[in-house]
Amino acid sequence: MKVAILGYGNIGRAAEEAIKAAPDMELAGIFHHNDCLECIDADVVLVATPTREVQKFATVLAARGICTVDSFDIHGQIWSLRESLDAVCQSNKTVSVISAGWDPGSDSMIRALLMAMAPKGLTYTNFGPGRSMGHTVAAKAIKGVKNALSMTIPLGTGIHRRMVYIELEEGADFKTVEAAILADDYFAHDETHVIPVASVDQLNNVAHGVNLVRSGVSGETHNQRFEFNMEINNPALTGQVMVSCARAAMRMKERGVYGAKTMIEIAPIDLLPGTTETLVKALV
Amino acid sequence: MKVAILGYGNIGRAAEEAIKAAPDMELAGIFHHNDCLECIDADVVLVATPTREVQKFATVLAARGICTVDSFDIHGQIWSLRESLDAVCQSNKTVSVISAGWDPGSDSMIRALLMAMAPKGLTYTNFGPGRSMGHTVAAKAIKGVKNALSMTIPLGTGIHRRMVYIELEEGADFKTVEAAILADDYFAHDETHVIPVASVDQLNNVAHGVNLVRSGVSGETHNQRFEFNMEINNPALTGQVMVSCARAAMRMKERGVYGAKTMIEIAPIDLLPGTTETLVKALV
Repeated sequence: MKVAILGYGNIGRAAEEAIKAAPDMELAGIFHHNDCLECIDADVVLVATPTREVQKFATVLAARGICTVDSFDIHGQIWSLRESLDAVCQSNKTVSVISAGWDPGSDSMIRALLMAMAPKGLTYTNFGPGRSMGHTVAAKAIKGVKNALSMTIPLGTGIHRRMVYIELEEGADFKTVEAAILADDYFAHDETHVIPVASVDQLNNVAHGVNLVRSGVSGETHNQRFEFNMEINNPALTGQVMVSCARAAMRMKERGVYGAKTMIEIAPIDLLPGTTETLVKALV
Repeated sequence: MKVAILGYGNIGRAAEEAIKAAPDMELAGIFHHNDCLECIDADVVLVATPTREVQKFATVLAARGICTVDSFDIHGQIWSLRESLDAVCQSNKTVSVISAGWDPGSDSMIRALLMAMAPKGLTYTNFGPGRSMGHTVAAKAIKGVKNALSMTIPLGTGIHRRMVYIELEEGADFKTVEAAILADDYFAHDETHVIPVASVDQLNNVAHGVNLVRSGVSGETHNQRFEFNMEINNPALTGQVMVSCARAAMRMKERGVYGAKTMIEIAPIDLLPGTTETLVKALV
């Protein structure tokens, strides 16, 4: 299976390692945003570009009949990406796996499975401790901020604290900057602490975590309790999940199942190398 | 979707509750081991018989083109059940979901997903605290034992302690019975404690649990840590999982995907009621 990477940031680099470690894949090249997409010769392309550019690139590749995998992560826009790419994939008999990371992605599969195990109840997804890209970008955009890092701290029941570490621009007033951050829509709804530091770079760390909890009802039996925890290197996991989904895309295409698929639409076995017999014997 | 139940023990009863709670199902009858299988009019039959009778009943039903779901739980024989039922299902254009409980079953899906997230590493499935049916039956078979309950206690890294509560027959010698239990192949390899009690019935409790742990490598990044825990009512969860798998069996059959499938071969979305759009928007 020839797998190429489009975009070579943290996730592209991690995906490269995961492709090289896969027993059934070869790296078909690493491409950048402005390279010629028509020149990519691969069975699957991992679209590891910034999330807002995913749709454009995935559409061009799917129109060529190439499978794609992305980790598009704007939760409110996943369905519209799926609808738009699905049509292109169906017309060109290919498969695009979308939003393939850990959330959205593997967490989504866990949430779906837990709902099947206890259909009534509440699921809370608690993120962190780990860096929030969206909040970090929002803090960096505040006037007087030279560099920033926004950490997400889980407080349970889906409530999060924001710890915002900032490096001030010369002459900037901390109290003014702090007030601007606290008033920003990204931070105004959560408990937020702003902390001045000498160097944000010294704090950077790609560790992240999830604590996903469900208490629910199976049949008429209440108090069924489930919990999924992970502590991971964020880009390494995202890159690995994309690579595993590349395999699933090819499997579905080979079976004549075309379209854009989220991870809850993928059977776990299709993520793994090996035969059905080997995998059933090892995992079931 | 008309769903019938064959076998009306703990799991059959729990499945009945789950069918009644499902928005898209109606109960098509409850049947016993010696009822006329030809008389069952249903889209799916949940085979909730003792595990050793599953193959016989599922084969007859699949040969009639009816979908089946079972919770066959002898790990070493799952592949041969799948092979045998697969042929019947393919010939009769139907689907049998096999080994659909929590282990084998939902735990298997988690194990497969974790392997896709960190392909190299170790997964430990720690069971309990909860009653082990196999060990309880083995203890009951010892001479001098009137009634028994064998609890499985997780000690981590897949190692388990057996706590065996026994009610002695009149005149039986505790030390002799204890020695016989400790020498039995079911108990000889684990730390086992035998405890005499006045009434085993007073101890019975269908609570069970799992602690499933994986530490592995994503790409070239080590120390990726994952943990899945649950504390559940055992038959209630098994019955619910079977009912969710009944839905998946019908979905696959409607798409023209026939055969015998384990849960790792099922996409999580197929376990749930509702449209793809609703489920993607709610869970991804």
